[in-house]
Amino acid sequence: MSRLMQRLDALMQDSDEPGQITRLYLSPAHAKAARRVQGWMREAGMTVRMDAVGTVIGRLACADADAKVLLLGSHIDTVRDAGRYDGNFGVAAAIEAVDRVRAAGVALPFHVDVLAFGDEEGVRFPVTLSGSRAAAGIFDPAALDSVDDNGVSLRAALQNFGGDPDAAGGARYERGRVLAYLELHIEQGPLLEVERLPVGVVTAINGATRLLVSVSGAAGHAGTVPMHLRRDALAAAVRQAGLSQAELVATVGRIVARPGAANVIPGEVEFTVDVRAPRDAMRQAALADIRRRMSAVAEAHHVTLTTGRSHEAAAVACAPWIQERFAAAITAEGFFARFLPSGAGHDGMAMAALCPIGMLFVRCRGGVSHNPAETIFEADAEIAVRVLQRVLTHFPAE
Amino acid sequence: MSRLMQRLDALMQDSDEPGQITRLYLSPAHAKAARRVQGWMREAGMTVRMDAVGTVIGRLACADADAKVLLLGSHIDTVRDAGRYDGNFGVAAAIEAVDRVRAAGVALPFHVDVLAFGDEEGVRFPVTLSGSRAAAGIFDPAALDSVDDNGVSLRAALQNFGGDPDAAGGARYERGRVLAYLELHIEQGPLLEVERLPVGVVTAINGATRLLVSVSGAAGHAGTVPMHLRRDALAAAVRQAGLSQAELVATVGRIVARPGAANVIPGEVEFTVDVRAPRDAMRQAALADIRRRMSAVAEAHHVTLTTGRSHEAAAVACAPWIQERFAAAITAEGFFARFLPSGAGHDGMAMAALCPIGMLFVRCRGGVSHNPAETIFEADAEIAVRVLQRVLTHFPAE
Repeated sequence: MSRLMQRLDALMQDSDEPGQITRLYLSPAHAKAARRVQGWMREAGMTVRMDAVGTVIGRLACADADAKVLLLGSHIDTVRDAGRYDGNFGVAAAIEAVDRVRAAGVALPFHVDVLAFGDEEGVRFPVTLSGSRAAAGIFDPAALDSVDDNGVSLRAALQNFGGDPDAAGGARYERGRVLAYLELHIEQGPLLEVERLPVGVVTAINGATRLLVSVSGAAGHAGTVPMHLRRDALAAAVRQAGLSQAELVATVGRIVARPGAANVIPGEVEFTVDVRAPRDAMRQAALADIRRRMSAVAEAHHVTLTTGRSHEAAAVACAPWIQERFAAAITAEGFFARFLPSGAGHDGMAMAALCPIGMLFVRCRGGVSHNPAETIFEADAEIAVRVLQRVLTHFPAE
Repeated sequence: MSRLMQRLDALMQDSDEPGQITRLYLSPAHAKAARRVQGWMREAGMTVRMDAVGTVIGRLACADADAKVLLLGSHIDTVRDAGRYDGNFGVAAAIEAVDRVRAAGVALPFHVDVLAFGDEEGVRFPVTLSGSRAAAGIFDPAALDSVDDNGVSLRAALQNFGGDPDAAGGARYERGRVLAYLELHIEQGPLLEVERLPVGVVTAINGATRLLVSVSGAAGHAGTVPMHLRRDALAAAVRQAGLSQAELVATVGRIVARPGAANVIPGEVEFTVDVRAPRDAMRQAALADIRRRMSAVAEAHHVTLTTGRSHEAAAVACAPWIQERFAAAITAEGFFARFLPSGAGHDGMAMAALCPIGMLFVRCRGGVSHNPAETIFEADAEIAVRVLQRVLTHFPAE
């Protein structure tokens, strides 16, 4: 087994829950994992530090101290009962690529920083992307007052971890000194597997809108109210649910009919609509279309429609020129360069406030993630590292 | 206020729950209501008895002891927190009509029995129609072993009530000696109100089939799985839900999507389909159509469909010649004779095993029933009594 895969297996031990992988932001397991990652960084010839919000940063310094810096990274926190690759792979693969560049004796014309963020999943506190937000200079100090389920504030947890809450604002990289942020990540979707490709170039992190739709009609006896006199909320609601649009994804994940008895016409139906797309205009157009269709059905069925927005995130594009560099490296490795959007969120969403971003996806089995069954192939991991190594080696210093 | 409406108001007092109308089979409230109804029957010149299963029976006897008997009736049990007219109206109106026939000095060529059944709603025990089943000779002795929520058996409750469980089989009328069973009931639907009619002739008690449909697909991340790779159970299921057929009613009253999170593609969806129609062939054709449509959608979406039948009741037709007599009486009273099916079940379903049945519906406000807001108009109640009086007066003795 390759060193990269061995390291990812070893990292499983750093868990807050025995028998599973659960590594929450600023927890004892996070501290252990941070030390382990620092060890890998040192082996790769990097100098190591931790920033004010707990991000582990290893630097392969350039001879020219005034050179700009290229950021690589991902996160080492996990969801509860996680798989071993989500986030962790990107950190370990970045260290592996840097080690190979150094071992090959290549003198890069820029510093390389590998960042191991600690709060991408946002599981412990009701905030997320704390590490990448701090690095990007968009950390909101109000987040320090948020508390976990045990009443521990982010501020207190940071102090206990050895961080410095009051210096969180100073953890930012200087804009204009950063060349780009590159991240390797498992796809968390099935596309590369279906198309039999080891890696893919990410075009954008999809924007997302989540709607909560309420449909109010009139409840009634399932047997005695004729169809033409019904104001049947469920009939109206569900006709909307299956819509599908090219290039975007729409999901009705939750639906409730009230009162919810087999022999009562539902008077009230509530369902969620989750819409994601790589471009904001595409998502907005789809939302407008969805609203138009829902209104038409509601009108036809004499029910009242209320739509609330519970979540909204703009799409974050990966820099086209970085996409091209990833694509060229993939082609050089002998594979077809597949471009695909990211349906899930990543640290790059925050880093895009600082610099151009680029992402490379690695095939994962069955598209399964956030699950102990998460699996990648050793051969794919190797291809991903080689692609990153190529991109790194030829990355422009300006 | 008319005597009929006053009696229905007074009957509200006989409740198992203070402040609401709840009168369960064989309860103290049922016993009180039975005594009250017996009093009304005596005032109307009837001889009174109670059969083995607690049905109160008043007889206006014919001079010819060997004459056949015409049965009128409805039920005096209620659902929990009920309205005051469901069932009770049919009993009080029948007594009122009999009283008027007697007061008018009309000598009918048959006996008239008014039956006040005690178990139409089936709330207390997991059986229903105990009174009408016993009268019709189709009471299943196994029902005596069923128990209520407190572990009291129907047998023990009957003994305590003054009934005779072992004689339940003997409560039946002799087939061939019964002319018909006629019942007045509130519509429990909105049709007569919408059409501005006080009463309507029931054509049939609808048959009903209840299906539990399970749709299995594959759960997944709402953001990362492209639409063309989804096996999206909810999208498939809900497209079926709004179907509507002429002349029958179909209801999707309950729907569950699992796991049920806004950001997860549902892998499993379950929903109920309740289909009712006045003729069995119509219901079966509709069910076949529904199954065909569901299968087509399931196939298109690559999901697996499982359909279970949780309830099945055949339609019970009202005798056409009795429908005609009700219609003639309505016309004679100056109203349009509207024929409509009954979406809800009634004691007539059991009585049809004994003799021809007929039903007259009375308009109720907003179609609301099984609810304290249940309302009928005094004028409509009067019209209904007059219609029944006409039918009674001219009913054929053979």
